[in-house]
Amino acid sequence: MKAAILGTTGYTGMILLRLLAGHREITEILPGSSSHAGMALCDTDYGLSSSVLSSSVLLKTRGREGRLLSVEEVVAAKPDVVFAALPHLASVKVCAPFFGNTPLIDLSADLRLKDPLLFERTYGEKPPRPDILERAVYGLAEWFTADIKRADVIANPGCYPTATLLPLLPLSRAGLLKGLVITSALSGISGAGRNVKQAYLFCERSENTCAYSPGRVHRHQPEIRQGLDSVAGSGLDILFTPHLVPLKQGMAVTSVAELTRPLGSDEVEAVYREAYGDRPCVRLTGDRIPETLHVRGSNRCDIGWHIEGDRIILLSVIDNLWKGASGQAVQNMNIRFGFAEAEGLSLHGEI
Amino acid sequence: MKAAILGTTGYTGMILLRLLAGHREITEILPGSSSHAGMALCDTDYGLSSSVLSSSVLLKTRGREGRLLSVEEVVAAKPDVVFAALPHLASVKVCAPFFGNTPLIDLSADLRLKDPLLFERTYGEKPPRPDILERAVYGLAEWFTADIKRADVIANPGCYPTATLLPLLPLSRAGLLKGLVITSALSGISGAGRNVKQAYLFCERSENTCAYSPGRVHRHQPEIRQGLDSVAGSGLDILFTPHLVPLKQGMAVTSVAELTRPLGSDEVEAVYREAYGDRPCVRLTGDRIPETLHVRGSNRCDIGWHIEGDRIILLSVIDNLWKGASGQAVQNMNIRFGFAEAEGLSLHGEI
Amino acid sequence: MKAAILGTTGYTGMILLRLLAGHREITEILPGSSSHAGMALCDTDYGLSSSVLSSSVLLKTRGREGRLLSVEEVVAAKPDVVFAALPHLASVKVCAPFFGNTPLIDLSADLRLKDPLLFERTYGEKPPRPDILERAVYGLAEWFTADIKRADVIANPGCYPTATLLPLLPLSRAGLLKGLVITSALSGISGAGRNVKQAYLFCERSENTCAYSPGRVHRHQPEIRQGLDSVAGSGLDILFTPHLVPLKQGMAVTSVAELTRPLGSDEVEAVYREAYGDRPCVRLTGDRIPETLHVRGSNRCDIGWHIEGDRIILLSVIDNLWKGASGQAVQNMNIRFGFAEAEGLSLHGEI
Amino acid sequence: MKAAILGTTGYTGMILLRLLAGHREITEILPGSSSHAGMALCDTDYGLSSSVLSSSVLLKTRGREGRLLSVEEVVAAKPDVVFAALPHLASVKVCAPFFGNTPLIDLSADLRLKDPLLFERTYGEKPPRPDILERAVYGLAEWFTADIKRADVIANPGCYPTATLLPLLPLSRAGLLKGLVITSALSGISGAGRNVKQAYLFCERSENTCAYSPGRVHRHQPEIRQGLDSVAGSGLDILFTPHLVPLKQGMAVTSVAELTRPLGSDEVEAVYREAYGDRPCVRLTGDRIPETLHVRGSNRCDIGWHIEGDRIILLSVIDNLWKGASGQAVQNMNIRFGFAEAEGLSLHGEI
Repeated sequence: MKAAILGTTGYTGMILLRLLAGHREITEILPGSSSHAGMALCDTDYGLSSSVLSSSVLLKTRGREGRLLSVEEVVAAKPDVVFAALPHLASVKVCAPFFGNTPLIDLSADLRLKDPLLFERTYGEKPPRPDILERAVYGLAEWFTADIKRADVIANPGCYPTATLLPLLPLSRAGLLKGLVITSALSGISGAGRNVKQAYLFCERSENTCAYSPGRVHRHQPEIRQGLDSVAGSGLDILFTPHLVPLKQGMAVTSVAELTRPLGSDEVEAVYREAYGDRPCVRLTGDRIPETLHVRGSNRCDIGWHIEGDRIILLSVIDNLWKGASGQAVQNMNIRFGFAEAEGLSLHGEI
Repeated sequence: MKAAILGTTGYTGMILLRLLAGHREITEILPGSSSHAGMALCDTDYGLSSSVLSSSVLLKTRGREGRLLSVEEVVAAKPDVVFAALPHLASVKVCAPFFGNTPLIDLSADLRLKDPLLFERTYGEKPPRPDILERAVYGLAEWFTADIKRADVIANPGCYPTATLLPLLPLSRAGLLKGLVITSALSGISGAGRNVKQAYLFCERSENTCAYSPGRVHRHQPEIRQGLDSVAGSGLDILFTPHLVPLKQGMAVTSVAELTRPLGSDEVEAVYREAYGDRPCVRLTGDRIPETLHVRGSNRCDIGWHIEGDRIILLSVIDNLWKGASGQAVQNMNIRFGFAEAEGLSLHGEI
Repeated sequence: MKAAILGTTGYTGMILLRLLAGHREITEILPGSSSHAGMALCDTDYGLSSSVLSSSVLLKTRGREGRLLSVEEVVAAKPDVVFAALPHLASVKVCAPFFGNTPLIDLSADLRLKDPLLFERTYGEKPPRPDILERAVYGLAEWFTADIKRADVIANPGCYPTATLLPLLPLSRAGLLKGLVITSALSGISGAGRNVKQAYLFCERSENTCAYSPGRVHRHQPEIRQGLDSVAGSGLDILFTPHLVPLKQGMAVTSVAELTRPLGSDEVEAVYREAYGDRPCVRLTGDRIPETLHVRGSNRCDIGWHIEGDRIILLSVIDNLWKGASGQAVQNMNIRFGFAEAEGLSLHGEI
Repeated sequence: MKAAILGTTGYTGMILLRLLAGHREITEILPGSSSHAGMALCDTDYGLSSSVLSSSVLLKTRGREGRLLSVEEVVAAKPDVVFAALPHLASVKVCAPFFGNTPLIDLSADLRLKDPLLFERTYGEKPPRPDILERAVYGLAEWFTADIKRADVIANPGCYPTATLLPLLPLSRAGLLKGLVITSALSGISGAGRNVKQAYLFCERSENTCAYSPGRVHRHQPEIRQGLDSVAGSGLDILFTPHLVPLKQGMAVTSVAELTRPLGSDEVEAVYREAYGDRPCVRLTGDRIPETLHVRGSNRCDIGWHIEGDRIILLSVIDNLWKGASGQAVQNMNIRFGFAEAEGLSLHGEI
């Protein structure tokens, strides 16, 4: 199978390239880049194995071995699946040639919010393609599996919504939560992408931590609310405060929710086992608190919990670039094409 | 004035030594250490300026220039003020010779909780000296100033309570908050002291973040609740979850509280100005979100806020070793002895 | 094939476990530990994938699914190959039952130095088993390949010698270098293992860098000299200064050597191509300077160079835990058993 | 005394502001900025103490309390001393109005190299003001003290030359070194200034280390050679390789030099004591190896050494933004105006 990547030189694109190069069902990768088309991959990604750079998985037409392709070249090469790892508000435009022709997994936020008004309020523009918005399946892999199998366009979830929704949805669906969920999320700096801004310099972020965009109507909150509504229709609300912490890859989310009735830890575990028991990318840690290092470089979401009277504290961790982006995108491709769900994905975290 | 430090080789002791060496009112420092008595200071603290090591501020009796003193030697040297930078549950025992004789500022948790039952529930032992517990003034410098001026024993607050209480107390006292405050706190690794445990190794903490001790009856929660009660008696409750983040010095606290009535940002600012307007160690940042780097190496607590409907999000940052420990201890000494409140304390954060 | 690990809970053991779990030729892993025998693996290594923990690759005899085995249990289970990831001077003793019976790859320094006198001078003890010392093949994979294929005992090289020798040996063998090589090496903190010492605490190593053990007769220098001698007998000498830098995994070595005659960069490249042209774990970067991030989590050694008059500056990087330890150990197993040289080993560095 | 800073919003400018605000002889600071003139200081430097922002040390003319001044405004305010913390090749142009009128300390490289041809070869342009080049005194404070006292223009040394020359010069002057010095230098990321480039992003530099610009005729090597020549005229040569390590502030330099005759450590110490015995900003650590953390936030250079046969290994550390830039600039002002050499400068490193 031939897989194309649009945006190969960003962090999520670089990880997609590694994951697809090790995926048993992918025989060819088309590495696209609008900004660096024509450049040799080995000059934009020094970490790539030489064997990949010179091997048959990279497009070899027209003598352009191991080179980044323009979008037109990608289109011409007729990929079987396209991963768009492009900036928000640019992605849908670049992807236009593929809609209706090629299964597409979009890692941007362009197709996540279903409500055009909410989209506009959140991103400051009307949705560029409301028709696609409607068709796009929200790719939270453990929850919309059936839809993903039939999807032409998959809107890959954001890292914050992934890490926040996975622990909330099972309890919410079971009617165990009510009221306002108060969520505090800690993100590594790669969540900002390969954005060259002063705020992301090493000297500005090392030995530094802070909250940002607290509780405003920003991109994370509506996406999380939509996810909550779509599963349970429970009227649960959420107040979400993200924080930047000085690590590269990793996200830890702490949610405090009100219980609708007294619950034991075993009961919580049972609800989670029902939701995730056979799914490879979620692990329950119970009253052991999960740490981001243990899921770094893996597609796992680890979930722990602690009951405190009429509240429950939910603790979840992911690697924001894996389960929070490129890893989940490959998981979605696996589901869409009927491959083993974790094919090509490491489930080991770091030591 | 002669100042003694008990526990000079831990992180808070090392900072106390630097602060006192630059303090205009301190003419002599007695650096005590039970574990390293007799060793030369320059062999336990390589960062100290040579001029301090050889200067008159260090005890020169008996030819022991620049050497760490035993507790007995400290007692014999009759200090005018004692800083105890010792481990919890050990501090009060070591400090016994000074009670009633010498003003003492205790940086441990031994004298913070007033209620003996709560103390026992929190620390697993009966309070070693209930008599002292009662007399000890809680040294949250901006709030118990009058008591600190008269205190013989000052229980220096923990870093989490300091950073959590400073934004909550003014609003709570004004009757503007109700219900359950949900607090998420991020701490640098030095919060654990110079504890040689596997969990605090560089390789275990770099590229890692996690919550710990969520919401349990642990040492932070009762101290914060006691602080809330003592100021406002408001019946405010708090659910507190601390997190470890990979930086050395810095603490960021995000609290979400329910408002008793609609509030504008100006009104919040007015309440804070009334509480802190003339105090040098608190800065209001309004809707700019404070960052820990900007208070690193300073005795400032920066406070910002964001109103979201019927909730307010309070954002505060401190350097856990300064305003959260040694810096506030010096501030308390300044208040106790009538010096300028910020004498000897930097109010600049890092660049 | 059944592979055993002795010392599964250290950093190199944890990586060996991950590598072997993904190795196509390994059907069973025997995770040994003298200190933690009997404990569940999932309680000592939180990052491991659940699928590994419960799968057939872990020993299932006697109902001890996913548990750490004592050395006796490992012996009884008759492994086909043993990896010893144990501390220096302890390793050879623990490994005694396997000598002569089972191919063994020792990651400690116990069997690296051939000369018993040099061993004693370096480690302060007589070599515990001089008979084994003699038989052990030095496992610098690209250089002693033929010997490794026939070896019963392989002494896996240290990380410093690996990163230092790989760029030096080809030029030395070709007679292009003379005199004293001046080497400066930078190592991540994991080079010290999972050693619980104050010097390796996060708060002591972050924002800190320093040299250590400069030029003394310590463990790195004799091993490097022996490597130089064994290949070229050139009489090249080396003065080696290691440094600690605040990262977890990564090693960068900068060597300055005197040339025996004027050389062009092309000629250097030709010498390297002859030595490493078909070897998967060495990459030549020419005048692009290699960075540790690009080999992190990979078994690659990247080598660059710069000619400056009659000197050449050699620049090499490895991941000290991969090519510098566990990765090279698996590479050696692959060579020993006739598997593909990089089977089970990632050759991609991080993004 | 009125001190002006040109380039207040860069890292060296921000530190100058803090140092001058605490300097007893400075009564007014004029914070200049070509790019941010007119902005409030509190909006460009969030770490600054409010007391500084509102105090009399900042220019209060024309109601512009706590605002950044244009160069013209700085000129009009007639400072008594000017610190130029501007980019290379821009500095001399901006400073033109002050030459001949006001003592100027230039932190850029514009005035460091005396030889116009060498300047052109190093920086790719002819020196903008050869007349000033000639008059500028090289501000290596411990070595050109007498000249600095009389200087109108002081060329503040680079961080690499400072940390490299301080250990070399005493031995070189004493005729104890010969041949080619091989130097390896490790620098924190702030050495690159507040430069917004992809290479300096947190995600590119954390968990990463590498050499750069090895041995070429770049800006460090000629400046160091000129320093060596000017003191000893010894014909010592140097081959210098800098490395980037993932910390913010700190520089460690390891030089290996050939001795002209056998030397004992005591003799080395005697030479250093003669050179630096009474100077407050140099500390000798002998055979204890200096670490950057111990000089972070201080104006100290710590120097250690190790003799190995006919070579000596010299180990020196500084904070690149203090003794390597802003701290030494203040030290130079102190010398120039007859203040105590370390006035306003901390000599304590971090804990």
